[in-house]
Amino acid sequence: MPVRLLKEFEKLKASILALGVEVERQLRLAVQSIETRDPHLARQVIDGDARIDEMEVDLEEDCLKALALYQPVAHDLRFLVSVLKMNNDLERIGDLAVNIAKRALPLAETPPMAMPFDFQTICEKTEEMLRNSLEAMVRFDTDLAYGVLEADDTVDDINRKIYRFVEEEVLKTPQNITYFIHLMGIYRQLERIADHATNIAEDVIYLAKGEIIRHREIPSPHR
Amino acid sequence: MPVRLLKEFEKLKASILALGVEVERQLRLAVQSIETRDPHLARQVIDGDARIDEMEVDLEEDCLKALALYQPVAHDLRFLVSVLKMNNDLERIGDLAVNIAKRALPLAETPPMAMPFDFQTICEKTEEMLRNSLEAMVRFDTDLAYGVLEADDTVDDINRKIYRFVEEEVLKTPQNITYFIHLMGIYRQLERIADHATNIAEDVIYLAKGEIIRHREIPSPHR
Repeated sequence: MPVRLLKEFEKLKASILALGVEVERQLRLAVQSIETRDPHLARQVIDGDARIDEMEVDLEEDCLKALALYQPVAHDLRFLVSVLKMNNDLERIGDLAVNIAKRALPLAETPPMAMPFDFQTICEKTEEMLRNSLEAMVRFDTDLAYGVLEADDTVDDINRKIYRFVEEEVLKTPQNITYFIHLMGIYRQLERIADHATNIAEDVIYLAKGEIIRHREIPSPHR
Repeated sequence: MPVRLLKEFEKLKASILALGVEVERQLRLAVQSIETRDPHLARQVIDGDARIDEMEVDLEEDCLKALALYQPVAHDLRFLVSVLKMNNDLERIGDLAVNIAKRALPLAETPPMAMPFDFQTICEKTEEMLRNSLEAMVRFDTDLAYGVLEADDTVDDINRKIYRFVEEEVLKTPQNITYFIHLMGIYRQLERIADHATNIAEDVIYLAKGEIIRHREIPSPHR
């Protein structure tokens, strides 16, 4: 690989990582704003999204410039296309973190209620998936990437359970429906974030193996 | 543009259109499966997704090959990247149509209830947005694309109203909570489909103007 292209790739990798760090931070704050029912913190997350949008647009333009300038092929081309896709996934996770934070505003108006017992688990699992998908990308670590794919099943399970929880609870206290709607909304956003982290992990595997694995059953021992 | 590249582009355009037609069909059938509470039709949509996944993977591989082989620059490069992104959006719409169809299965088990009065509007609006975003792409028609962006506001509005509707109705009949949860789920999938159609329309505008317009306020007279 020519030195200039190598340098360009290092720059793009640094940019996507910087975006990843920013998005991780937004997600953490969004979850916090729910836990503490803090409208001030929620607004901070909502306002912080503009910065992420900007980083995403800049990174896409840098990728397009690199594509046009260096006209990479084979692995280098796949790398650039993967960065384009990860960029897109990270920006979407930023949007979903905003959706979570937005729920903190009406929640702050409802009577305080304990979050379901698995709330912390789904938050931690999702944050971990995001962190590991980025880590997998930096280190081209396919084992870590497969781990993200497996973790997605756990998040999906927890998300399914919340529906049953709400179905039961609404019968006891229908007047709390607003709270329950927001609760389901928050779990759903977390599940969607986990899906995007899964996309990133799939791109890492694609990059390492040159094989598109999405839409496929993962063979054991990985699943 | 060299003749071979032109031919390749025509082929890619035909492929993305074919995918679009297939996805439109899936969405129409999914909506029908809800309207008629037909589990058989719902299963048809669920099974039909494999075909869409296949088309998406093939199209992505064709795009990567074209990128590597012709090393396009400027507008041609943007076209290829746009096809990659639209491909992704269409595949996601296919997934969301499956999510809608999946709701028809448990709905078929709940006592028959009339869908809210705006159900047909949100379905028609969303289907129209998808159709127009594809049409805009084929004809490079930015006016049509801006129309899709505007329609997205209507879909968002209807989706917001369904929450208020459920909040009111659950107080009257909490025992219908399962129906209400699926109802909200269906509206939300339609709203997400409208978002993906908006992405496609934004890509058409990007392609025509060479300018990334997402995350920006649309200036009047368009909004």
